[in-house]
Amino acid sequence: MVRVAVVQNDPLFGERSRNIADALALMSASPADVYVLPELFATGYNFADRSEAAALAEPFASGETYDAMQSFARQHHAVVVYGFPEQSGDAVFNSAALIAPDGLSGLYRKIHLFDREKLLFMPGDLPFKVWDTTFGKIGVMVCFDWYFPESARTLTLRGAQLLAHPSNLVLPNCPDSMPVRCRENRVFAATANRVGTEERGGVKLTYIGQSQITGARGEILARASLDHAEVLVRELDLNLADDKRLAGHNDLIGDRRPEFYA
Amino acid sequence: MVRVAVVQNDPLFGERSRNIADALALMSASPADVYVLPELFATGYNFADRSEAAALAEPFASGETYDAMQSFARQHHAVVVYGFPEQSGDAVFNSAALIAPDGLSGLYRKIHLFDREKLLFMPGDLPFKVWDTTFGKIGVMVCFDWYFPESARTLTLRGAQLLAHPSNLVLPNCPDSMPVRCRENRVFAATANRVGTEERGGVKLTYIGQSQITGARGEILARASLDHAEVLVRELDLNLADDKRLAGHNDLIGDRRPEFYA
Repeated sequence: MVRVAVVQNDPLFGERSRNIADALALMSASPADVYVLPELFATGYNFADRSEAAALAEPFASGETYDAMQSFARQHHAVVVYGFPEQSGDAVFNSAALIAPDGLSGLYRKIHLFDREKLLFMPGDLPFKVWDTTFGKIGVMVCFDWYFPESARTLTLRGAQLLAHPSNLVLPNCPDSMPVRCRENRVFAATANRVGTEERGGVKLTYIGQSQITGARGEILARASLDHAEVLVRELDLNLADDKRLAGHNDLIGDRRPEFYA
Repeated sequence: MVRVAVVQNDPLFGERSRNIADALALMSASPADVYVLPELFATGYNFADRSEAAALAEPFASGETYDAMQSFARQHHAVVVYGFPEQSGDAVFNSAALIAPDGLSGLYRKIHLFDREKLLFMPGDLPFKVWDTTFGKIGVMVCFDWYFPESARTLTLRGAQLLAHPSNLVLPNCPDSMPVRCRENRVFAATANRVGTEERGGVKLTYIGQSQITGARGEILARASLDHAEVLVRELDLNLADDKRLAGHNDLIGDRRPEFYA
């Protein structure tokens, strides 16, 4: 059994050190094996423009956010998945890092950018990837990726047992849709969302909370509040995701017929 | 505006003439432009074995069922989509026909067979297809096809505005999942299911009714009862399915990134 935590935080825009400290306090108070944090959890989301995103971006595998999460992962023997604005040369990506206690670290760059993110970030240029960690096979997708069924499907076909899903949700539909994503793929999902409101540059965004742990048969195993910071932890048998059988004669992956798919 | 009807019937196994007459009575009492009937609506579903399925099968574009539906389509200037066991040489497919009043008729053979259907039918060997009818662009998928997101996605990519979805649902999840299918593709869906129970050869199946018309933004526009025959009709502006825009900067189809999909 693997203890999976969704860390629902309430960051202050631009206050990276404060937001990291708050997240670490939440995490330390909630023992788990795998922690999933929101998209852009330490910086805030509602950047006014590209230069503001760049100013708060950090390179992958170094910087204040990475160092803090790596240190936590080692000390607590845990996997940590979190979202951050990634500086890479002149480009900024909306990225997520996966850090495992054994030193493994992986990078995902959000493939489906949402709304104004297109004005701020480069679209992801790395494949959907699954990391084989001590605690299970973890695929990473970020927020709006959920809307495109190909995201979860691709991660499933690459062996994911758990979808780690850092998010900053503003649309209402994700929590009720993740059961369909999990059921059609027979995978678990940990959707970590933030709460709070950000009004910047004339754009006001309200984040809907409701971080969720979803079972491989579409069960909502845990759902957080709409409006306050909290951590939810559930013990999951991720191996259940390896059994794709349905009814007496079906296999949800084996029965696919890609030759008929556009 | 197009009036779309889901015809929820309660067939008696093997009583084809009776079942066709019942369906025609339901349809005649409910004026519409597009009628969607259940999977295998005139024969019943729970065949004991392959020879029993073969005995009730009819070739495409002839036979009692086709003739009755074509006659209705002409008289009422309507499109009719219905499921039937199709005899094709020595093979039997779980098929659906689309008949338009101008003489157009199309054939779909169920691509994802459910459970014991694998013992009874040949898997579909024709592409997912969309027919450009007087009343809109209609794609056809049958029952369990809904479980695989590739089905609705493929029909959407081929231009469908409405998914005509003949079904014989026994699992509970389809009605609540179709909003996700429609939302992710921005298409309408008409899921026509049957009611009643069939116990044959030691296998008892209870069909869950709840035929449903789902809007292109995931709204449940109509849902039928669990247990009695009825027709629901809704007026739909199918052109709304052609606008795939979301938020300020997204397009649900244009933003796909197939180069990253497995």
